[in-house]
Amino acid sequence: MTAPSWLAAVAAEIPPLDSAACTAAGAHLDRLTKPPGSLGGLEAIAIRLAGIRGRLVTDIERPVVIVFAADHGVAARGVSAYPPEVTAQMVANFAAGGAAINVLARAGRADLVVVDIGVAGPVAGDAPATGSDAGVRLVRARIASGTRDLSTGPAMTRDEASAAIDVGRDVALGLIRDGADLVALGEMGIGNTTAASAIVAAITGLPPATVTGRGTGVDDPGLERKVAVIESALTLHRLDPGDPLGILAAVGGLEIAGLVGAMLAAAAARIPVVLDGFITGAAALVAAGLAPNLPDRLIAAHRSVEPGHAIVLDRLRATPILQLDLRLGEGSGAALAIPIVRAAARICGEMATFDEAGVTNTG
Amino acid sequence: MTAPSWLAAVAAEIPPLDSAACTAAGAHLDRLTKPPGSLGGLEAIAIRLAGIRGRLVTDIERPVVIVFAADHGVAARGVSAYPPEVTAQMVANFAAGGAAINVLARAGRADLVVVDIGVAGPVAGDAPATGSDAGVRLVRARIASGTRDLSTGPAMTRDEASAAIDVGRDVALGLIRDGADLVALGEMGIGNTTAASAIVAAITGLPPATVTGRGTGVDDPGLERKVAVIESALTLHRLDPGDPLGILAAVGGLEIAGLVGAMLAAAAARIPVVLDGFITGAAALVAAGLAPNLPDRLIAAHRSVEPGHAIVLDRLRATPILQLDLRLGEGSGAALAIPIVRAAARICGEMATFDEAGVTNTG
Repeated sequence: MTAPSWLAAVAAEIPPLDSAACTAAGAHLDRLTKPPGSLGGLEAIAIRLAGIRGRLVTDIERPVVIVFAADHGVAARGVSAYPPEVTAQMVANFAAGGAAINVLARAGRADLVVVDIGVAGPVAGDAPATGSDAGVRLVRARIASGTRDLSTGPAMTRDEASAAIDVGRDVALGLIRDGADLVALGEMGIGNTTAASAIVAAITGLPPATVTGRGTGVDDPGLERKVAVIESALTLHRLDPGDPLGILAAVGGLEIAGLVGAMLAAAAARIPVVLDGFITGAAALVAAGLAPNLPDRLIAAHRSVEPGHAIVLDRLRATPILQLDLRLGEGSGAALAIPIVRAAARICGEMATFDEAGVTNTG
Repeated sequence: MTAPSWLAAVAAEIPPLDSAACTAAGAHLDRLTKPPGSLGGLEAIAIRLAGIRGRLVTDIERPVVIVFAADHGVAARGVSAYPPEVTAQMVANFAAGGAAINVLARAGRADLVVVDIGVAGPVAGDAPATGSDAGVRLVRARIASGTRDLSTGPAMTRDEASAAIDVGRDVALGLIRDGADLVALGEMGIGNTTAASAIVAAITGLPPATVTGRGTGVDDPGLERKVAVIESALTLHRLDPGDPLGILAAVGGLEIAGLVGAMLAAAAARIPVVLDGFITGAAALVAAGLAPNLPDRLIAAHRSVEPGHAIVLDRLRATPILQLDLRLGEGSGAALAIPIVRAAARICGEMATFDEAGVTNTG
């Protein structure tokens, strides 16, 4: 049950938020020409950014969206509204620049990196290993051609899960080394709300029916199958809530493992992480099990319609920024939140103080 | 009780949303490479934009934030956490580029126009009548040097209220003529949550205590004074809920009247309007009383902590985009919502269809 060495060490590399930097940011915000606290959640984001980076953050200049894509053996069980080949088709669509996340990353002036960490079939279009005309970079780093069916055996070995975590770590660290100052996370994988629901049920102990929803839009019989598949998987695997890596390997996914690695690496590097929806949230629960100080370094972009997401956000003590009833994934909500996070930073960087502006301060 | 001629005519110029354009936008969204409806509120915004403009909206290129500023006689009654001179000081701060709305308009890549429609004292800094180095334009169009105390008599005459509506109309129409394709609205005026609460109580019939909050942060005794002042004003004026212009004149404000004129003019010009918080919401209730089709042409940016705001949004049948516990005003929340509205439009303009991308569509 020993975690691999990087994973064992990373928890110690993620300290609590820098409370002195948080206090200084709060004091700075109170000197700006506005009633104290009147920017509400925007001020909370600015204070959190300071605590994460250990200094006042005055802009977000190089945000990056990382989308991990992988297939799921369990998709063969009819748990999704879409057939498994859509994962590879959507990766090709990402590479060509035509998906929602392409639009939303561009709109948020963020770089987009798509990681094929475990897609099952060939990705059409012969996209180059790195670089693309569409402002997106495709990283080919398959650990396996999808997971095995989690309802009949472990989705991954522990070694596969660890290797996928390492891919996520390496991609995030490479981007941070190149200057990324915010990491927004997303995923693509037909069947992955089934894996995420199984993870959340295993970690929280809640019944699968409570934490399972329609994903991209499965119908009533599909939802019943999905819940039944998760119930039987949890019975099969007899998971230990105190063994997040074991849970990840047994019922998770390669893209979920990639998310775990990316968020742990970014947090250890003092770079803020913006979560998207239910699946990135499930990854965060796994990662928080490995590094208890992680959640303070996460920013929740939105609350999706997936019923388990509210439970995950509550566990992470996270207040979502947007309320748009999203259920797409891909990092779409995380990309939408980037301008809000950037605005919070720029408030700290660009507003005048009461003294500078000659405004009477009774706050 | 007859409304002036433009006001009497404008209701007819604001038709219901273009339902054919809404239907076509919805069909377009369903052809894009995502499960139908999976972008939730973002798709609702895109459909609303189409209904407002009568065509698919694929970008927001020239958004403008208009901030109307004015003083309130009632501020002398100790209803605010800040003294009245702060209105003029903050207008000078807007002109110098140091306020929150300056930062947030820049972050949203929006032009900012500040209208002195009724500030009481001189605005320091000798800002030019139009144009400024700080990327903001100051329009000097005072109808009066603030309103009179609404608790002892009418805040404005009907003629003053009408003249202020005309200023708002003219500013908005000028900007739209210059190419503005979205109008976001904000305000500045010490004492104006008192006026807004009085308007909302008069229109809804709800008790002042229910619709009145702390504004920029008044203390408990101040809140009690504020509620008592509104109660006595409503007793004094005996307002008719069916006479929105009479309510606006008796207990409103010059900047609130400017907001009414701007939103009616933008709606009549088929330009989407983004509301900020409680005060722009109160103005929208007045404007909706004059033009019943107006609310469908408004986009609510956020729900503030002011208790009356949820009531206003409910009346307007509006779903706010952001949940950030803002209570600043200035158009801050409206500016923050601009990137989200822009993203909704660009989804329609830039995403690939299932056919184009070769993605299997089971939706």
